[in-house]
Amino acid sequence: MKELFYSVTPLEELFVKLDKLDVSPPVVEVSVWDALGRVLAEDFRSPVNVPHFRRAARDGYAVVARDTFGAGEEKPVTLRVIGEVKAGDERSPRIGDRACVKVATGALMPEGADAVVMVEHAVEREEYVDVYRAVTPGENVVEEGRDIRRGALVVEKGRVLAPQDIGAIAATGVDKVRVYGRLRVAVASTGDELVAPGGELKPGKIYDVNSVTLVNAVRASGGEAVYMGVIRDSRELLLNALREALATCDVVVFSGGTSKGPGDAVPSALRDLGDLDFMIHGLAMKPGKPTAVASYKGKPVFMLPGYPTSALLSYYVIVDPYIRKWSHLPPCEGMEVKARAGVKIFSEEGRLEFKPVRLKVEGGEVRVYPAYTGSEAITTLSLTHGYIEIKASRSFIEQGEEVTVRLFRPLREIRGLEEESW
Amino acid sequence: MKELFYSVTPLEELFVKLDKLDVSPPVVEVSVWDALGRVLAEDFRSPVNVPHFRRAARDGYAVVARDTFGAGEEKPVTLRVIGEVKAGDERSPRIGDRACVKVATGALMPEGADAVVMVEHAVEREEYVDVYRAVTPGENVVEEGRDIRRGALVVEKGRVLAPQDIGAIAATGVDKVRVYGRLRVAVASTGDELVAPGGELKPGKIYDVNSVTLVNAVRASGGEAVYMGVIRDSRELLLNALREALATCDVVVFSGGTSKGPGDAVPSALRDLGDLDFMIHGLAMKPGKPTAVASYKGKPVFMLPGYPTSALLSYYVIVDPYIRKWSHLPPCEGMEVKARAGVKIFSEEGRLEFKPVRLKVEGGEVRVYPAYTGSEAITTLSLTHGYIEIKASRSFIEQGEEVTVRLFRPLREIRGLEEESW
Repeated sequence: MKELFYSVTPLEELFVKLDKLDVSPPVVEVSVWDALGRVLAEDFRSPVNVPHFRRAARDGYAVVARDTFGAGEEKPVTLRVIGEVKAGDERSPRIGDRACVKVATGALMPEGADAVVMVEHAVEREEYVDVYRAVTPGENVVEEGRDIRRGALVVEKGRVLAPQDIGAIAATGVDKVRVYGRLRVAVASTGDELVAPGGELKPGKIYDVNSVTLVNAVRASGGEAVYMGVIRDSRELLLNALREALATCDVVVFSGGTSKGPGDAVPSALRDLGDLDFMIHGLAMKPGKPTAVASYKGKPVFMLPGYPTSALLSYYVIVDPYIRKWSHLPPCEGMEVKARAGVKIFSEEGRLEFKPVRLKVEGGEVRVYPAYTGSEAITTLSLTHGYIEIKASRSFIEQGEEVTVRLFRPLREIRGLEEESW
Repeated sequence: MKELFYSVTPLEELFVKLDKLDVSPPVVEVSVWDALGRVLAEDFRSPVNVPHFRRAARDGYAVVARDTFGAGEEKPVTLRVIGEVKAGDERSPRIGDRACVKVATGALMPEGADAVVMVEHAVEREEYVDVYRAVTPGENVVEEGRDIRRGALVVEKGRVLAPQDIGAIAATGVDKVRVYGRLRVAVASTGDELVAPGGELKPGKIYDVNSVTLVNAVRASGGEAVYMGVIRDSRELLLNALREALATCDVVVFSGGTSKGPGDAVPSALRDLGDLDFMIHGLAMKPGKPTAVASYKGKPVFMLPGYPTSALLSYYVIVDPYIRKWSHLPPCEGMEVKARAGVKIFSEEGRLEFKPVRLKVEGGEVRVYPAYTGSEAITTLSLTHGYIEIKASRSFIEQGEEVTVRLFRPLREIRGLEEESW
């Protein structure tokens, strides 16, 4: 009998090799209006003091604090009102003893004044005001640079920018930030049987599911997907597509090409490129065994299996963590739950298996069930909630055994589960 | 003394009123290439069988199963090879007794064949093949409609589309899906003191932080932010801006306008629009007391305080949950952690307080500390990790007391915390 199985590499060995690649997106400048979720590429230090002038912190009267000493509800202190400053006014009068200036919150403080009496504690009578509560120097005044000192670190390199971070940057007047660009990831499917969604489907043809799935998955990983189209099973077309992908993108993700016999049409065609350094061809995992990973002058080329469920699960296990890492994004969605197996879950001994599973609440407890369908079914991942990892040494998981489920989506998006009962 | 404090409404009363609004985005059609994270607006049922023809599930030989009965490693069965079908070939020969067709994975099954012998279990000799393992009818064959039956529910209404859901839809050949449109949310800041980031800053002026922050926050909530610019403190300009916002958007979020004395310049100007139905003006919470919320012919108008920290915290507490709800998105980022207070945390008795806090790992435990700065500081939220809610009846949280922290960002994005130790 022919032996067509190639040697398989343990997943950890692939990870060690991928860890050595130095894939990094360029640093780009984006507007603060579009900076949500981007990763700051360098420490942001303030070019200015914020606020850059002394401001009133309350609506009221800017005073010399010592003029109000002794004031109380029974014995107000009377001051002369010599002007008014609104928020946004660019000038403020200078005040002397026993005078004050009416100010609005945020207004430029008058020179000479060192506190603000809140409007609630004062009664104005023509050009005078009765102050019913004493203030201390500095009370209700925001000093220059109180929020942010010139040169101070406002947001550190590597932070995923949230609205408040962008606001702190914008407060210094800066309207562009330097962030890591998105990794450009080429996505293509290979196979004579593939038709782009929306096209006409003759017998023998199927829709190209993987491109749509992987383009969206790359975006979910924080990358910029560059769709290269369906590539026919021709060595020349494959090579051209790979050359184009390598010329324009940082990472290449191909799927399929297992339709011509020994299951390595794509890898073997691509070996012809030369300089393509194969890290592995054949992975000790299920699904995903026919996976090949190579690099070309430091750029990773992932060749995933053609079955949609195998392709996407391999993507989640192998590609997603690295797109995130190279993009300086946090390692993953971090969505894991522990729960007990609802039935005995079988696995092939001798191969690390990633098994799609469903969650189900039974008697107030969440139970884990294997998918009804296998990796050849297109709907398997859409009908499941996540996957579990079954070690090569195990041939099954016992009913009732605790397993860790890596979720495809946050728990709150999974319907029919009463999260409260966990 | 003047009493300028308006009556305040408990948060729950506002929520009851907001719950009665029926804000809903239109249903829109998007390409499967751009459907990630969108919410499906109607059940998706398959218009076709998937696969729409009988396929070979393996590379090998399509046979009549009963012809192989009795085959074994010691006594192969010999069949005549009458043709070959590759994946994507639109025709397949008809086979009779003791004949077979070489097939690739995914190939159209020949009429008459009911199983596939894997290539690993066969040896080809010119026009014959020796089969070393018997197969049963249906073995290694994918029947028409096996993955998805015509008319079957593929993805249910309300699901937030993940790559695998989009893939399952694309497998049926459909390249557009009907999803909920994004809510259009008008964002504007009001105040004579405001200058757009990047502009020149004279004394008395400050950068408009809130617009940048809220535009990004609206996007984080799943809305489409429509920036209306800085509105000067003029009743006419405010009214014009509100009219424009209401004409073009589903939700309006204004901030500021508290600079002119009693703190309700914006709400009072907007009362002139007529038909603007005020739900509340003044909220029993800290920060966010000056908040006003109205509706105009069913469209919500949120008037948030001007201080950036107050504005954004009010947004997170009041606006974000409703943008998500109205958009049919899951209720929130769902990011909460329980941890103990590292120090006694003071609060104003009689007011529900949302206090920004920092997390810190001490002796392997996460502790909660209040922000160094108050709601007047622009950096408060950027320097904290989340906020806790302190009931109106409490004047402090005891050191060591357990509190629930609503996080601004996922834990994995917070540096310096060893998540393992939780």
